[in-house]
Amino acid sequence: MRILVTNDDGIEAEGLHALVRACEAVGQVTVVAPHHDRSASGHSITLHKPLRVAQAKIPGSRAEAWAATGTPADCVVLAVYGLLPAPPDVVLCGINLGPNIGHDLTYSGTVSGAMEAAILGIPAIAVSLDAERDPHYEVAAAFAAALAREVFRRGMPADALLNVNVPNLGFGQIRGVRVTRQSARRYRSRLERRTDPRGRPYYWIAGERTASEEAEPGTDSHALSQGYVSVTPLQMDLTHPQLLSAMAAWELDRLLASS
Amino acid sequence: MRILVTNDDGIEAEGLHALVRACEAVGQVTVVAPHHDRSASGHSITLHKPLRVAQAKIPGSRAEAWAATGTPADCVVLAVYGLLPAPPDVVLCGINLGPNIGHDLTYSGTVSGAMEAAILGIPAIAVSLDAERDPHYEVAAAFAAALAREVFRRGMPADALLNVNVPNLGFGQIRGVRVTRQSARRYRSRLERRTDPRGRPYYWIAGERTASEEAEPGTDSHALSQGYVSVTPLQMDLTHPQLLSAMAAWELDRLLASS
Repeated sequence: MRILVTNDDGIEAEGLHALVRACEAVGQVTVVAPHHDRSASGHSITLHKPLRVAQAKIPGSRAEAWAATGTPADCVVLAVYGLLPAPPDVVLCGINLGPNIGHDLTYSGTVSGAMEAAILGIPAIAVSLDAERDPHYEVAAAFAAALAREVFRRGMPADALLNVNVPNLGFGQIRGVRVTRQSARRYRSRLERRTDPRGRPYYWIAGERTASEEAEPGTDSHALSQGYVSVTPLQMDLTHPQLLSAMAAWELDRLLASS
Repeated sequence: MRILVTNDDGIEAEGLHALVRACEAVGQVTVVAPHHDRSASGHSITLHKPLRVAQAKIPGSRAEAWAATGTPADCVVLAVYGLLPAPPDVVLCGINLGPNIGHDLTYSGTVSGAMEAAILGIPAIAVSLDAERDPHYEVAAAFAAALAREVFRRGMPADALLNVNVPNLGFGQIRGVRVTRQSARRYRSRLERRTDPRGRPYYWIAGERTASEEAEPGTDSHALSQGYVSVTPLQMDLTHPQLLSAMAAWELDRLLASS
């Protein structure tokens, strides 16, 4: 099994290193990761400027590794179309320091790397650790590597990917694994207006997590809060099926006639 | 009806100006748009650096307008939490020069501006024109303004948004409006390796549209190709429902035990 590992936090991130070392136990690993932290880059692809890559070294690993100037999605494209002799069997993106659940997904560079792989038709897993500090990466890394092998054996539907979030607990402390749906948990943005030394205003966007919907059973956030690993299958089709049906009665041709 | 207009192509884009002028016929318009082109920025939020805003002027309009240093999603947050006295009733993002359909959605700054509004609980519409050059913005702008009024009247489910794509045809040439689902149309990425004057390699990512799935009736790309306006209702929940059911049999607790 050939595994491509990338991430959002950059080639020097400990979470990446732990994931690479765990994956070496189950397959042949190549790393293509951003040169520096790309957090909250969204699912962006770099079309307007050229990309550079440089060979790199992952501590405690003999995996072939490159650092690239682009985003996680760029790294996947660089690997699949340029750096690897053949496409990987599975792509892993992580381990992110901090969870990627609920609406946070749409901002997540970690999920975007896995999405790009899914778009290219390669089974993909995004891996995040529910920690702000003192991360225990080893449990998440070992689980992700085992899940990569499972996905390689079973295969995945086209345009699907897995979003894994792991509680920040040691070996033996995690209660189990839950297959979950995406919660409606969200950042509540907050804006801070400040004035610079020359008297001109500027703004900081600050995010506050809201806890209101954390308790809904079956969701990613509920599983995490109960000490379970959350595995959420995601799709690339954003169509809203109920609204699609309901809007058939909207008779939108009218609007074109009146415009 | 209070309308916030933003976009991805920047405050100087003709598509934005046409949309603002059309919206002034149906409501009170405020503009907060990126200072320059943010195309393919994905759904990113700027957390690591401060944002600046400057007052701006939209040609042919008396709408209050600001240019901001951030992304379309940043512009929505700046408007809702900082610049507007009260949240808008509807947010419009566009008119993008070029379609946003199929998997392109996940890269789209235009859709991301509307997603941010949906996350904040505000009905939102992303508007794109299926043109590479010689854009006819007027039809798309008039339709989007009429649709904004319709959405304001009917309301929208939480976490839903509308993704509108308009053929590049003049008044009277568009065949009608279709409510569609997202197609599987995708960019096929391609990598070009070049060598700089100092002999070092660099890469360009190039995108090629693949036409294979364009013909599937009921999709955004099919509607456009037949000369219809495409209106696709989107949701923020990416959960893959079939895989969610199927994975119940995967017994993932095993992987944790073995890791």
